Amino acid sequence: MKIAILGGDGFVGWPTALHLSDKGHDVFILDNLSRRWIDTELGVQSLTPMDSIQERTRIWHQETGRKIHFHLIDLARDYELFKQWLVQEKPDAIIHFAEQRAAPYSMKTDRHKNYTVNNNVNATHNVLNAMVETGVDAHLVHLGTMGVYGYSTIGAAIPEGYLPVGIETLDGTTATQEILYPSNPGSIYHMTKCLDQLIFAFYAKNDGLRVTDLHQGIVWGTHTDQTRKHPQLINRFDYDGDYGTVLNRFLIQAAIDYPLTVHGTGGQTRAFIHIQDSVRCIELALKNPPAAGDKVKIFNQMTETHRVRDLAEMIAKMTGAKVAYLPNPRKEAAENDLIVRNEQFLALGLDPITLQEGLLEEVVDVAKKFAYRVDRSRVPAVSAWTKDIAKTVEKDPEGKRLKSVS
Amino acid sequence: MKIAILGGDGFVGWPTALHLSDKGHDVFILDNLSRRWIDTELGVQSLTPMDSIQERTRIWHQETGRKIHFHLIDLARDYELFKQWLVQEKPDAIIHFAEQRAAPYSMKTDRHKNYTVNNNVNATHNVLNAMVETGVDAHLVHLGTMGVYGYSTIGAAIPEGYLPVGIETLDGTTATQEILYPSNPGSIYHMTKCLDQLIFAFYAKNDGLRVTDLHQGIVWGTHTDQTRKHPQLINRFDYDGDYGTVLNRFLIQAAIDYPLTVHGTGGQTRAFIHIQDSVRCIELALKNPPAAGDKVKIFNQMTETHRVRDLAEMIAKMTGAKVAYLPNPRKEAAENDLIVRNEQFLALGLDPITLQEGLLEEVVDVAKKFAYRVDRSRVPAVSAWTKDIAKTVEKDPEGKRLKSVS
Repeated sequence: MKIAILGGDGFVGWPTALHLSDKGHDVFILDNLSRRWIDTELGVQSLTPMDSIQERTRIWHQETGRKIHFHLIDLARDYELFKQWLVQEKPDAIIHFAEQRAAPYSMKTDRHKNYTVNNNVNATHNVLNAMVETGVDAHLVHLGTMGVYGYSTIGAAIPEGYLPVGIETLDGTTATQEILYPSNPGSIYHMTKCLDQLIFAFYAKNDGLRVTDLHQGIVWGTHTDQTRKHPQLINRFDYDGDYGTVLNRFLIQAAIDYPLTVHGTGGQTRAFIHIQDSVRCIELALKNPPAAGDKVKIFNQMTETHRVRDLAEMIAKMTGAKVAYLPNPRKEAAENDLIVRNEQFLALGLDPITLQEGLLEEVVDVAKKFAYRVDRSRVPAVSAWTKDIAKTVEKDPEGKRLKSVS
Repeated sequence: MKIAILGGDGFVGWPTALHLSDKGHDVFILDNLSRRWIDTELGVQSLTPMDSIQERTRIWHQETGRKIHFHLIDLARDYELFKQWLVQEKPDAIIHFAEQRAAPYSMKTDRHKNYTVNNNVNATHNVLNAMVETGVDAHLVHLGTMGVYGYSTIGAAIPEGYLPVGIETLDGTTATQEILYPSNPGSIYHMTKCLDQLIFAFYAKNDGLRVTDLHQGIVWGTHTDQTRKHPQLINRFDYDGDYGTVLNRFLIQAAIDYPLTVHGTGGQTRAFIHIQDSVRCIELALKNPPAAGDKVKIFNQMTETHRVRDLAEMIAKMTGAKVAYLPNPRKEAAENDLIVRNEQFLALGLDPITLQEGLLEEVVDVAKKFAYRVDRSRVPAVSAWTKDIAKTVEKDPEGKRLKSVS
């Protein structure tokens, strides 16, 4: 298959490109490299030393003889350029990662809110619009998030995208209808993924586009079978307060003797998936496209759920790290349950890597190995969800506030 | 009250500005005048001779002694300018009409799709973002559309925004939860109004903004008590295939002996409201804001529903016009029922103008009076919803296709 990977230079995009190239597909990365620019803006860098995309693809070719093409295209801005590219290459599938993907970054300032909305909505809409306009019949696979569901409090399991509901009709009977799960986003970033869902639904209905939306949990881990092939193929690892996901942050905190920072009570239950499973799921989704005219096919791309404080205690036990409870910069429920259906990927053969088996390797192979590169001042999460919360969350780059630690 | 009217130069914006100024409010129109630019792009003009916004506000001052301020601001692009304006003027309420509002225009070409998404989403998000950033505690009233509901086929009445549904929980019981009515937009334009809803819900929840969303039916009529005060205060009247709403198009077709053009079977049931009632509803909404922390307050702003073919027959009977059935350029169900709840505005005292009492006046006072200004070649609707439909909908500016007429 000829596959376009939009945002293929990112944390999940890069290992996806390698995985699919390894499987024999003809892979084209289209990326505006904005994630590297944001590193520059924030003054942070990947824990792992990461080469340019040009160098990475050169090494991949050297190691495997396989070519990954790279085109610098901004999907949110370069609509005409993308259209030309589509007409020229006519990909069989398009994997869409080309969105700003950090909730804390999206809540930083009004400028970051606007950037996230503008970039994400326009990128998604441009892709669909160009597919219809050019008549390129590709299967679009989008990386969404479990966060579109919000965290339901009614004690029902989170289905894979669609929820059957009972609606009272005019004659007093109850009709059952399947609806897109009602969204309840927790940040501007999550909100853009909810907007994406409506845009996908429209284009699937009006134009018969074939769209798969992957509602992904929090990704942890760094290596895949392909990134391990050469040190310069290594994936990025973010540990900072904006882009670091909770588990990767705990790992690096443990590695540098920084307390594991739990926000609020740590009672938030989250869904997780290992990066290796993430790329496998994407491959499974590619192999099982919806038919033209079908509604958007939605998978929950996650393998485990955990409470944040339980994760912290697990890693503390494994590494001897301490746990610190801090005020929560997010506006969210202090505690929530989360039961998630993920039968579709399991039925397609996914055999998940568990936290129990993968965590220690990650601490040793990545966190401890590159701990010398950590900037401790970038570890705290400082983006507050509202101006009132900002007042309660002190900004403490020196970690002076972390005196009372369990 | 100090009131900002975003898009106050438009079809509903202008009479709203006059109505609220007449009631003693201090009115500021913020508009990028894009609607006038689109007239230029399409080579069409309002049936009614319409002066510049500067001239209109001058006449209003001359006739009433009251001042309506005008600021040329593009809400989708001039975020910083709008923020400065907010800080300087601190309005008590903001009425948001600043969106591209024609479904056919939004489906014209890929460029029009992108424009509509970009303009509408960014305008709405910029307004909310700036309100939070500046801390201006204004009541935001947004003009939405009945079209966000899609047209339900399950035989339930359309509630005012929120729908109670039964959801099966883990223990096998059914829990009832109120959700935002599942959206099912019929065009890119309608889709943007669905996106707006999610953006409003997020800002109401996260930042406690007070938002009212008016799900308006198709507006008909031209005059209000204020536009009648002077010929140069007249409202715009669109009859072209993109911006003309169905009823106004029938009126002008009747006035120029053009067959009333019904698309498909005409079995589409639509909701309607007179322009005079529309401005009254907006005033009622302003007087009844939600509290900070409340969910978005949603009203259905419509007073009657009719099948399109019944409307055509009603006007044909009244005027002697013929009715022509043409292929439908829209992708939609051929026939639908529509029962809409609108108790909230009725309870607040709205006494609707009915089609029966208002239609004939509209034909005589507006359609026949200005019929000499009609460009017959702009009457057909030519924007097709998909490329396949475009092939079936011939473009026939000369009306040659209209030979077989009932």
